[in-house]
Amino acid sequence: MATIRDVAKLACVSVATVSRVINKTGYVHADTRHKVEAAVKQLNYTPNEVARSLYKRKSRLIGLLLPDITNPYFPQLARGVEDEMQKNDFRIIFGNSDENHRKEQEYIQTFIQNNVVGVISSTNDPNSDTYSKLKIPVVFLDRTSTDSPSVYSDGREGGRIAAREMISRGSKRITVMQGPVHIRPAQDRFQGALEVLEENKISYNVIQTTSFSFAEAELWAKELFDKHLDTDGIIASNDIVATAVLHEAHRLGRRVPDDVQIIGFDDIPLSALLSPSLSTIHQPAYEMGRQAAGLLIKLIQEGFVEHRNIQFPVHFIERDTTRKVEHHG
Amino acid sequence: MATIRDVAKLACVSVATVSRVINKTGYVHADTRHKVEAAVKQLNYTPNEVARSLYKRKSRLIGLLLPDITNPYFPQLARGVEDEMQKNDFRIIFGNSDENHRKEQEYIQTFIQNNVVGVISSTNDPNSDTYSKLKIPVVFLDRTSTDSPSVYSDGREGGRIAAREMISRGSKRITVMQGPVHIRPAQDRFQGALEVLEENKISYNVIQTTSFSFAEAELWAKELFDKHLDTDGIIASNDIVATAVLHEAHRLGRRVPDDVQIIGFDDIPLSALLSPSLSTIHQPAYEMGRQAAGLLIKLIQEGFVEHRNIQFPVHFIERDTTRKVEHHG
Repeated sequence: MATIRDVAKLACVSVATVSRVINKTGYVHADTRHKVEAAVKQLNYTPNEVARSLYKRKSRLIGLLLPDITNPYFPQLARGVEDEMQKNDFRIIFGNSDENHRKEQEYIQTFIQNNVVGVISSTNDPNSDTYSKLKIPVVFLDRTSTDSPSVYSDGREGGRIAAREMISRGSKRITVMQGPVHIRPAQDRFQGALEVLEENKISYNVIQTTSFSFAEAELWAKELFDKHLDTDGIIASNDIVATAVLHEAHRLGRRVPDDVQIIGFDDIPLSALLSPSLSTIHQPAYEMGRQAAGLLIKLIQEGFVEHRNIQFPVHFIERDTTRKVEHHG
Repeated sequence: MATIRDVAKLACVSVATVSRVINKTGYVHADTRHKVEAAVKQLNYTPNEVARSLYKRKSRLIGLLLPDITNPYFPQLARGVEDEMQKNDFRIIFGNSDENHRKEQEYIQTFIQNNVVGVISSTNDPNSDTYSKLKIPVVFLDRTSTDSPSVYSDGREGGRIAAREMISRGSKRITVMQGPVHIRPAQDRFQGALEVLEENKISYNVIQTTSFSFAEAELWAKELFDKHLDTDGIIASNDIVATAVLHEAHRLGRRVPDDVQIIGFDDIPLSALLSPSLSTIHQPAYEMGRQAAGLLIKLIQEGFVEHRNIQFPVHFIERDTTRKVEHHG
């Protein structure tokens, strides 16, 4: 593989001149530049990114920290981030935090050690020292924060929509599954749903859940029907939990949506393929990832963005776990 | 943040000595080492990984290339790789190839530019120049290769098991969905299934599919029942396609498993939560990811592994899209 020295030799210039041409720093006469560019081409020279990042004190790496890529909601976010980064010639160092604070800190630290130029994080604690101490731009993704640059969807409105749809479709004994209390967007949805139920004086039960994991989703679903067998409408904390609830309803011989309606949250790709297909609140996860990447790139390149917070609207996806109504809104 | 110079100053030694202590290279007197270590501790000094990687010509970064993280099979693989790498203090630069050769090459090139010390790739073309030219270890994951270090599961046996289970549970007009022809493990499964069907002189149809995407899975499912409405057993190319087939069977009023049995492949987490839950062939994706990481780490650190190819067995997961039999095996 050709080195910068080989290029300098072939072009009959100094290594410093080659470096100035490659990094577009400092003045180089046009003729000299052409000679260097020709040598780069002839030798098929690729600058070593590590050496460049030391020289320029800038790499093209960013750090992406997600809670858990095996939750089907997060791959959509990750793809959005990656596609936008790839288009702009950035690369991603990736880690899962498992919502573990120590693991999160370790990842952030090694991101920095590898000279990332920015971080995108779906942390549960955007206000922690871990982030405020960083000297590089940070964008929070899928996390509500008004102080820091962040991209998220309108969870509260999502919860409100879910409750309104349940009510307008005739459910009277509604169960709301409260997502993990330490995850702010989950609590926003929960609060939104409760607001509408209370405004409409509809009775409801709450099932507390502490995670979004597949294994535990089945347990919450069982607990739900154990405690509230007569419930006729379930607002689930996300689509995985909703899928488990649907499964359990079938197992118990309860007809969906005739006996019990179910609404999920997220609109993961598999939701449309369930039987019956899952009515849910759509979050534009892929687009959220893209926008977070765009925001971070702007912060890296310009040091400034006009709109630091991007909140995406959510909307109801009517499928077959809710009953049809002729007019509603 | 403290630099190596600050450490040297505080310990009253040269920068070279600090470097020797930190990188454990060359002789340093015990007293001097203790002084340096105390200074590192007092200043809370963290070595810059990029500088270290230049100095030692080694980073702690590896490249991971997958086709598409939004296919629910791949996050399991990725988690296995990451958890093992994290335990061993390596970090991952991550990319999706979308099975696009140019994109794949670009990623591999930038991995190298960022001084990764190894690559794990789920490529469709393990024999391409892109890999044989690399001067760092490569492990192929979920890809069959006898020439290169690789970790995969026994797709052919998986196909054979699926066909045997279909036959022993009474299906007589079986449809086999042929996965994408350019994906070797998908073709192994397909061939395995066909072998058993032919050995047992069972009539079968084939539906050709060209991708594993959610959107297209619905189209293959529709085509399947359009062409072969009387089929009574479907061996799907993976769980996503099986989920779409199940959905379509319900839409057409065909009872599963009474009228038609369905067997998937992969055993993605959501399969257990479908209604009815999906019978499938289990691949240990997480464990495959872990083993690939272990193999790569060994190649990086020791330059040599005894077993270059790790093939995992697969097994049948009996759930509710297949009929019960009293004795079979």
